[in-house]
Amino acid sequence: MSAHTDNPQDALPDDEGSAFPLLLTPGPLTTSAATKDVMANDWGSRDVEFIALLTSIRARLLEIAHAGPEGECILLQGSGTFAIEAALSCFVPRDGKALVVINGAYGKRAVRILDYLGRASSVLECGEAETPDPAALETMLANDPAVTDVFLVHCETTSGIVNPLADLCAAVKSQGRRLIVDAMSSFGALPIDMAALGIDVLVSSANKCLEGVPGFAYVIAGRELLHQAEGRSHSLSLDLHDQWQAMERTGQFRFTPPTHTLVAFERALEEHEKEGGVAGRLARYTANRDVLVGALRALGIVPLLDDADAGPIIQTFHSPRDPRFDFERFYDALRERGYAIYPGKLTNARTFRIGTIGALDRTVMRGVADAISDVLDTMGVTDLAPADTRTD
Amino acid sequence: MSAHTDNPQDALPDDEGSAFPLLLTPGPLTTSAATKDVMANDWGSRDVEFIALLTSIRARLLEIAHAGPEGECILLQGSGTFAIEAALSCFVPRDGKALVVINGAYGKRAVRILDYLGRASSVLECGEAETPDPAALETMLANDPAVTDVFLVHCETTSGIVNPLADLCAAVKSQGRRLIVDAMSSFGALPIDMAALGIDVLVSSANKCLEGVPGFAYVIAGRELLHQAEGRSHSLSLDLHDQWQAMERTGQFRFTPPTHTLVAFERALEEHEKEGGVAGRLARYTANRDVLVGALRALGIVPLLDDADAGPIIQTFHSPRDPRFDFERFYDALRERGYAIYPGKLTNARTFRIGTIGALDRTVMRGVADAISDVLDTMGVTDLAPADTRTD
Repeated sequence: MSAHTDNPQDALPDDEGSAFPLLLTPGPLTTSAATKDVMANDWGSRDVEFIALLTSIRARLLEIAHAGPEGECILLQGSGTFAIEAALSCFVPRDGKALVVINGAYGKRAVRILDYLGRASSVLECGEAETPDPAALETMLANDPAVTDVFLVHCETTSGIVNPLADLCAAVKSQGRRLIVDAMSSFGALPIDMAALGIDVLVSSANKCLEGVPGFAYVIAGRELLHQAEGRSHSLSLDLHDQWQAMERTGQFRFTPPTHTLVAFERALEEHEKEGGVAGRLARYTANRDVLVGALRALGIVPLLDDADAGPIIQTFHSPRDPRFDFERFYDALRERGYAIYPGKLTNARTFRIGTIGALDRTVMRGVADAISDVLDTMGVTDLAPADTRTD
Repeated sequence: MSAHTDNPQDALPDDEGSAFPLLLTPGPLTTSAATKDVMANDWGSRDVEFIALLTSIRARLLEIAHAGPEGECILLQGSGTFAIEAALSCFVPRDGKALVVINGAYGKRAVRILDYLGRASSVLECGEAETPDPAALETMLANDPAVTDVFLVHCETTSGIVNPLADLCAAVKSQGRRLIVDAMSSFGALPIDMAALGIDVLVSSANKCLEGVPGFAYVIAGRELLHQAEGRSHSLSLDLHDQWQAMERTGQFRFTPPTHTLVAFERALEEHEKEGGVAGRLARYTANRDVLVGALRALGIVPLLDDADAGPIIQTFHSPRDPRFDFERFYDALRERGYAIYPGKLTNARTFRIGTIGALDRTVMRGVADAISDVLDTMGVTDLAPADTRTD
């Protein structure tokens, strides 16, 4: 367990006056000291020990995803969006059509990528604080046989909402379409059984619930799909088929990998396993969420989502309507107290977000809640009712 | 100065039996302890201090490049190839044509990228141990007015050859074409004055002569060119115009940046400045090269290139023709002695390569030469004449 007290972020750096705050953000997030410590060595990207490390990482990710015997894992440099774009370019045929399920910014981004790729798309969109309706998805698919692929986001970081993955997957599978799941901010903490759910392609990143540092992402897909993707990508850098073939042949990345990030990720995977894998991580994050949301509710701050929809990843709270509340001042004051929170991203309500993932535990969550109480007092904020009432 | 003795690579890690070898590779390379040490903290990617760090990095890179008042620097996640692809997609018009100057693998890769992008291209190719002829380039351009852009590699890591940048630039400028320079393995150690040479676009990476760790690359180009690139990229992830606009507006990356890599890079830039900038770094690398090549020549090992063409970046040596020489055994034995060298990449000769860049000095180069002498003795290799005589 990574408690607050063994995190090096508490220490002042040698040459600066300010502490490094704990990151209560959806990733990059606070990682363990051990995960960062292993970056203190340089590894050759074509060296035999580094190749063994890559092989181990790919195998562990396949296990966590329950990808089955046909599953392959491709690591790709860049942020999660790079891997989302790579997956859409490789798995949606050039004459195919993708239906994108949207209830936040990441669904919208997928549509933007499809536009760049010149792929046809349609959308099923609901409010940012609502979960998509599996029956509506099934009906849309039944009415549009041109749709070859469905893209959906498991946990929308925009609000922190966890979409009903099993029911949405069932709707897609009942209509026999290919299913691409953006599991960026859920993978490693929320259980996902690709084989059982019929997920064809899963995309996630190093710096979310597996608690690595940022620098690469990964795509998990079946071998047959990867073979079909040959020659389909618009981009050499993002060509997953080419990357996969090279990794199979040489065990290496085609182009310079972020070596330190990968070494840190292997250590992060070991810690994930030691914590009890997905179940252990989910338990800690859930406890984080319960402590934080409970404490802020007790103060009078209103969370955006019902407990049933709010995942354990990131929590969205309504900004207080009190005119003395100012997000920038609130952020700075919390940062001074050692906590970096996250701005809101909703289009129709003033909110702020607090991540409940990373190498943090309940003690930290209680500390954040106390700091928030203190800061609001200092700011003279007393009316904590929501700043905006949603009208939709 | 980063001597062998203050490098943490010397130390045995706590939990493994093998030492981390020094990397005598063209990047990822050996970085200083201080550069790696700063990765021991997590930084929020949207935090004000991280934004200030990005602004500082971009400004320093523009200075090193002598980009002039019109210059802009765009940082991009991924390896150098990602940035090369981004630059080709943004600066070669969709109806344009690129002439690629080739004397190694990186020129060839640019042609492959242009094929992915559907851009017309032609090539001026010479042998891997020869420098391209500026007069031939000028003639080709004069005879083909359809060529809008010329792409050339400053230092071809395939052999380590340094191409005659000033003369090649003059040839391109005399014909009024746009000039994209791959300065991946030269930037920061070989002087480049973009404004004086008329270089329109320069691409390089974190983990080469500026001695950062891998995870991002960068493109330097004029503001007017960037404006022209709007809507031109094939890829959201690789869209330099979009990335630039977001950086200008918010100071941030659009998508999660490799935070630790960027923090390390700022430290690496400070060390570059302390060493005397490009001139200081060039002096150390040149000394490295002189010591290494001198010592191996004295043993009887033959370098591929003339001293006039061999840069200070990476040295290619002919493998000994002695049948007792085996590269894998040679590599492993040197690695056991603490030195990771690099395989050859030439298409027409058996060679091996040794990088002379990174946080290494003459003492290390003498150590490598001694280790090579020792290993060849142990292997019973006595005939050090080149394994293959080139026939072109």
